[in-house]
Formats: sequence, C-alpha cells, structure tokens
Amino acid sequence: MKDIKKAMEEHLDDLTKPRGSLGKLETYCVKMAEIQQRVPPEIKKKGIYVFAGDHGIASCGVSLYPQEVTRQMALNILAGGAGINALAGGTGWEITLVDAGIMGDDFPPDNELKAVCSFVRARIGRGTKNSFEEAAMTAAETEQALDRGRALAEDAADRKIDLAAIGDLGIGNTTTAAAMLVAAGFQAEDMVDRGTGIDSAMLEHKRDVVREAVKRRNAPSKDGKAILQNLGSFDFAMMAGFILGLENKGIGCVLDGFPVTAAAYMAYLINLPVRNWLFAGHLSKVVGHRPLLNHMGLDPVVDLDMRLGEGTGAVIGGHIVELGVKAAREMASFSSAHVSDAEKAEEKY
Amino acid sequence: MKDIKKAMEEHLDDLTKPRGSLGKLETYCVKMAEIQQRVPPEIKKKGIYVFAGDHGIASCGVSLYPQEVTRQMALNILAGGAGINALAGGTGWEITLVDAGIMGDDFPPDNELKAVCSFVRARIGRGTKNSFEEAAMTAAETEQALDRGRALAEDAADRKIDLAAIGDLGIGNTTTAAAMLVAAGFQAEDMVDRGTGIDSAMLEHKRDVVREAVKRRNAPSKDGKAILQNLGSFDFAMMAGFILGLENKGIGCVLDGFPVTAAAYMAYLINLPVRNWLFAGHLSKVVGHRPLLNHMGLDPVVDLDMRLGEGTGAVIGGHIVELGVKAAREMASFSSAHVSDAEKAEEKY
Repeated sequence: MKDIKKAMEEHLDDLTKPRGSLGKLETYCVKMAEIQQRVPPEIKKKGIYVFAGDHGIASCGVSLYPQEVTRQMALNILAGGAGINALAGGTGWEITLVDAGIMGDDFPPDNELKAVCSFVRARIGRGTKNSFEEAAMTAAETEQALDRGRALAEDAADRKIDLAAIGDLGIGNTTTAAAMLVAAGFQAEDMVDRGTGIDSAMLEHKRDVVREAVKRRNAPSKDGKAILQNLGSFDFAMMAGFILGLENKGIGCVLDGFPVTAAAYMAYLINLPVRNWLFAGHLSKVVGHRPLLNHMGLDPVVDLDMRLGEGTGAVIGGHIVELGVKAAREMASFSSAHVSDAEKAEEKY
Repeated sequence: MKDIKKAMEEHLDDLTKPRGSLGKLETYCVKMAEIQQRVPPEIKKKGIYVFAGDHGIASCGVSLYPQEVTRQMALNILAGGAGINALAGGTGWEITLVDAGIMGDDFPPDNELKAVCSFVRARIGRGTKNSFEEAAMTAAETEQALDRGRALAEDAADRKIDLAAIGDLGIGNTTTAAAMLVAAGFQAEDMVDRGTGIDSAMLEHKRDVVREAVKRRNAPSKDGKAILQNLGSFDFAMMAGFILGLENKGIGCVLDGFPVTAAAYMAYLINLPVRNWLFAGHLSKVVGHRPLLNHMGLDPVVDLDMRLGEGTGAVIGGHIVELGVKAAREMASFSSAHVSDAEKAEEKY
C-alpha cells in the first residue's frame, strides 16, 4: 500500500494548488487510491444500502415511536418521501432499501409497491427476539444475516459501485447498538443516548435496560459474532456481513451514525482491517458516536448535529470523499497549466 | 422575520423525521426562508463569483509564489483546470471569474480565451499600490470597486441566482486581509498566517509588514471603507460591494475562507445586517478565520483543513445549505406518508 500512497501524494502535489491545501479532501483521495490500488482513484458510481429491521428490545419502552414506524418509514423510503431520498438525490447516490428483518407481513409485490428505489427482500425473520429476555437471534440466523450481507457486497461489486454507504432504519436500534457496545467493553454512560428524543427518566430506564440485557446475555467482549447473536439484530448482522464482504473488492464504504458504526465495530472485532476501507461520513449528535469512531481511528467528514439515520449523514460525507477524488482527477498540473510553482518562486526571494 | 422563522420550523417539524434530527441542515433552511421570506425556501440556481486581483503589498516578499501566479491561475480557472472548477462542477455551481484588478496586460478577447465559465472584465486598475508605502487605492477607485460589486449583485438577481458564493484569487491576499483586520482592531498574532506555506522567519517578516503598514496608514478602526481604501484591494472592495448589494434581493451568500471573510467583515462594518444573508461555507486552516467568524456570529458548515481559496470551501458548504432546503421541500409529512408521529407514540407508554 505504501507505493500507492506515495504515488498519490506526488500526483496531488503536482496539481495547481499550494501543497496540501485541499486538506482532508486529499486524505480521502489517498485512502480511495489505497482501496482501489490505483492512482488517481475513480468514483463513477455511488450506492447506499439502507438496512431496515425490527428490534425485540423495543418492547422494553426505550423509544418515543411505536415499532410499526420501521415498516412505515421503509414504505416512505420506497415512495421517495424520506430524508434519505432528498439527500441521496442531491448528492448522486443510488438507494437500495434492504428489508433485513422488519416485523409483520411481507411487503406487497413489486408491481403494487411502485418503489422509486431498489428494494431487496432479505428478511431473516419478523423482528428479532427481545435481547433483554433471550438471545436476539439464533446462531443459524446470525450466520444467515452475515451471509446475506456478504452477498450484497458481491451485488455492489457486480453493479460496479466504487463507493458504497450504509444507512439504518429500525425503532430501538440505538438501544441495540448501545447494548452491543457495552458488551464489547464500552461504558453504558457513554453509549446510551436520547435517541429520537426521550426525556431524562426514560433515558435512565434505557440505560438500565441496556446494562441488564448485557449482564443477562453475558457475551464474550471480543467476539463480534457472539455479541451480534446475543444482543444484535438482523439488520446489524447484515451490515457487518456487507462490510466484511467488501474486502479486496476495491470499494470504499461510508458509515452513517451511531447504529451503523456499532455494526461496523462488530465487523472490526471480527476482522480488524475493515477500517482500511471505511470512511466515517459524519459525526452524529448521538453521544456514543465520537468515542466509537476514535476507537477505530476514523475521522468524521462532517459534523452537522444530525441524528436522523437512514444514511443521511453518510451520503453527505461520502459526497465530499468523492469531491476529493474528483479534484485529483480533473485539476491541471503546474506544468500543463503554465503556472509557476512555489519552488521557482522561492529562488526569487 | 419572526413569523417566517416560526412557520419554517413548523413545516420542518411536520416532516417524517424526529424533531430537529437534521441538525444544522434545518438551521440553514430556516435562514434561507428568512432571506427569501418564503416557506419553504427554494434554491434553483447557485452561482459562485471568484474575484481576482493583485496586491501591491505582495512586493514586500510575503508569499512563496510570484505575483504573475494570480494571472496564471485566472487563466487556469477560465480553462477549467483549477480546484474550483472540479469542486463547483461536483456541487452544481455556475462559476463567474471577475477580474477586479489583475496586474499586467488585458486578457485576450473572448474568442481567443475560449473560457469554460463566465468572465467579467471589471478591472479597476493593474494591481493596487503597495499599502506598506502608500494607500492601496484612491477614494475614487474604492467607490468604483464597491459600485462594480453592487452591479454584480444586480447581475446575480437578474440571472435568478438563489444562492451566491464568493471566492478569491490573488497572491498576497492573506497579507492584505490580515492588515485590514488588524486595522479594524484584531491582533496581528491572531491574524497573520503562513498563507501558501511560508516558514517561521518569513512569517515573522509578514507580521512586521502587516503591523507597520497598519501603523503607517492609520485608518479609523470602525470605518470599513477607509480601511479598504488604505489597506485593501480592488478585489476585496468589489466583494464587499457585492455583499452590500445583495440586501433585500432574497439571495443568500456563502463565504469562502479568510480573505473573503475579511472582505465580508468590511461590508459588516459598513452595514451590520449583512450577516443576515451570509453563510460561512467552511472553516479554513488559516489561523485568523475562526475568531473572525465568531465575531460575526457565523458558524462554518464544514471544517476540512482546506486553505486553497478560489471559493473551494464555499461551494462545498453552500451545497450542504442547499441540501437542507431540498430536504424541507421534498420530504413527506407524517400525515401524507401515514407514519406515526412521536406524540401518538408517547400515549402508549
């Protein structure tokens, strides 16, 4: 990887700008060059996968919204009315909604849905079990979800996606994410957030639920797969499988906020090098996000106080990663544009 | 403005997302609603004006690059090879390069230039005088530059631009910007930066030049126009005129980095309300930028360690402002999408 990095930096230094003056855009471009093993890298197609699923732990009363909102919002995305539709549209991403395990009946057939984006029916079950009472998934379900995720990474490669992003949708998912991370060794005080806007009493209740669920499930703190099975969900396991499956595919992957990053952390426990193809799209307003990103050495592209999920932060940050690549590909060099470089100038003083 | 703000916030709260969960995107949308006096606001066209000019003070040896680079880089922008071409292209902005006062011969006629963007020949002179030795401009030149800027604001309105942005190009412009701000009361230690990458000895020299120029010119610290005339430049005065001219036009204006914000500060001294239609596109790596933005109560959209100028930070931040407006216009409401709102959920617990 070292030669690619050096070659990319030399390419950037020859462009008509003071050295390093595109700041983090140059860092993102170097990382994409390493991912694609190519100087300069190229991003022709960007695809966001929004993984939706229901979480049994939601029945513990940890969210302001009823569980049916997961399904309602999935339909809203398919109809084009959600935040991710507007923001992905404005930044050039193709959306794929993945039903990893939403509760209730199957969705209507495609001819009735008339979806404005791709829809993948990959439901492992109708919501997970409540991890406060029992393991969220069986070992077989966990493997199945990881495999489906890996298959979607193959799908991304087949579709010639250069930059992927991950979004999440599911009532209760900040609780599940916090439980997984507390099981992995983080402190509940640092990981449990107000989510969609709960009050202080409900926040204390949510912390208690998380601590007790982690204690009861007693998953080994370094075993990402065991944590996913005991405290995770279909959607989180599928995200982890997707990230793991991107290895050696030359595809970068942009994370959204706290829940998606928690799933990425499970993938990271399973295979540490995943962080080499991950970008942190944004810093979420959810409290646990910053320490989690720091732990993986990921620096968020933007910090806009967002906490919507669905991949809304990922598409904004990922678009800026793309801009870094675009600048490296399209800018003229000092010699081609007949612009005097700094070295020549220095001789004058 | 209060009713517009309230109406915009109510509109945002009815969209299918937890309240406030789009964070700063919602703040930008409210500001655009106030600027346009319209709920929701709309951004159909974005135009960036890059003001280029030469600075007499550059002959004091404060930059790594020779002065002819201003002209070379202007030609690079017209040919499509500069950073701003790549980044404006990737974020949907139309570029207008304004020759406010570049040194040397006039540019070739349009049929020879074959420019890929608009070019406005508004040169007030062939570079300013050296403000270390004498006033940078005459009073008449200053008025002329301000008027040209105001005329360009009319041009933006005629072109039906909803969101404008300002970029800068000119060797020596961080020195001129620092001198204007020190004259306005900021400390030289906080305002003088390494610019395109000078070493410590040259930095100390640059500070001395700035302090001495300010002392010699002795402009009144609250008089933006006098500071522009004594220590400013054609390009900075034209930017200030542009910003002043946007009053009551329903056009937002996104600032780039330190030099552009210094020009905006002069406009602010002349007419404090300008900040009501200004956005800070990014936080530049140039040291003086943060305190200057704080002084005007402007919060930068992104912080990417950039220090290239040309409007490269403005187009990125301004695009995110646009995304906030886009989300507000395109997202479904809870009732239209049949999604359960939080209030209904609360009754369940």
